[in-house]
Amino acid sequence: MSKEVLVPIAEGTEELEAVTIVDVLRRAGAVVTVASVSGLQVTASRGVKLVADRLIADCATNVYDLVVLPGGMPGAENLRDSPELEILLRRQQKEGRLFGAICASPAVVLEHHGLLAGRRATCYPTFATKLKSAEAAQSRVVVDDKCVTSQGPGTALDFSLTLVELLFGKEKAGEIAEAMVAAWH
Amino acid sequence: MSKEVLVPIAEGTEELEAVTIVDVLRRAGAVVTVASVSGLQVTASRGVKLVADRLIADCATNVYDLVVLPGGMPGAENLRDSPELEILLRRQQKEGRLFGAICASPAVVLEHHGLLAGRRATCYPTFATKLKSAEAAQSRVVVDDKCVTSQGPGTALDFSLTLVELLFGKEKAGEIAEAMVAAWH
Repeated sequence: MSKEVLVPIAEGTEELEAVTIVDVLRRAGAVVTVASVSGLQVTASRGVKLVADRLIADCATNVYDLVVLPGGMPGAENLRDSPELEILLRRQQKEGRLFGAICASPAVVLEHHGLLAGRRATCYPTFATKLKSAEAAQSRVVVDDKCVTSQGPGTALDFSLTLVELLFGKEKAGEIAEAMVAAWH
Repeated sequence: MSKEVLVPIAEGTEELEAVTIVDVLRRAGAVVTVASVSGLQVTASRGVKLVADRLIADCATNVYDLVVLPGGMPGAENLRDSPELEILLRRQQKEGRLFGAICASPAVVLEHHGLLAGRRATCYPTFATKLKSAEAAQSRVVVDDKCVTSQGPGTALDFSLTLVELLFGKEKAGEIAEAMVAAWH
């Protein structure tokens, strides 16, 4: 059965994180939708111009196996301020489906919406003090039940492979890592 | 003094590699131009839509401190078939400036144009037998004088940090790695 994944992006999203997540999950066979919270074309945090597949408003009624947020500033703030994305994230948590965030987004988006309460989570080191309701962890990737968080661009590949493991199993994650010449446990 | 870097892209370029190179070099302060060998917007190897800054034809008379090729198929073949890029690469080698390639591109582009003759180089493992004039190496990143090659998406970050080290020094590469939460020697 195919897995549906939503990757929201915004002006100022960290491009390496966004593209790594999309690339790795598509390699695993996920049906990934890149959805912008602003216009279809966005300029990412280091100036890379990305074109989304859809606008977030057109994803409102879909059910996703995973909703996963890249970080970057001000990208994370722009994701936080999207009412459509907030609704999707709350529904994802309430209905017990997988969600994740990396870099600034665990603190700026998930924590802001109260979606980390009582969980273990990690984020970009300088944002760790903003994890008020969560138990801050120092690991590169933290899985707490249906919530997966990670630290930054340098951990984006591990984060994405962890998401593949959760959706498709350990063997598939190992295959993808090998095909990408990636170090992976 | 600012460093000018050219990152050519094509239909079917490996998006994680392209974006990692651009992101890391811009973090270091390089002036990076993403130049397409086809139209301004390209669809990369896993479907990510990237918009280039310029067309390769508009870069013909510029002098770059580094020309660096992402891989991916058929992206590497499309880079190989660009006469404008071939001229830029030959000039880069002839005039003793830095050039590099990752994944399929060391074999499909650099080897094809004879730019690896007598050098040590690496590439995506299944392309290693195509390195006829080069001495194939198993390392994740190989620096041979002004030519830098690397293996695949999982080595793109190490490759990019090595390019930062060559252009801006070891200290800058260490700073960028730390800011990206990247493992780096």
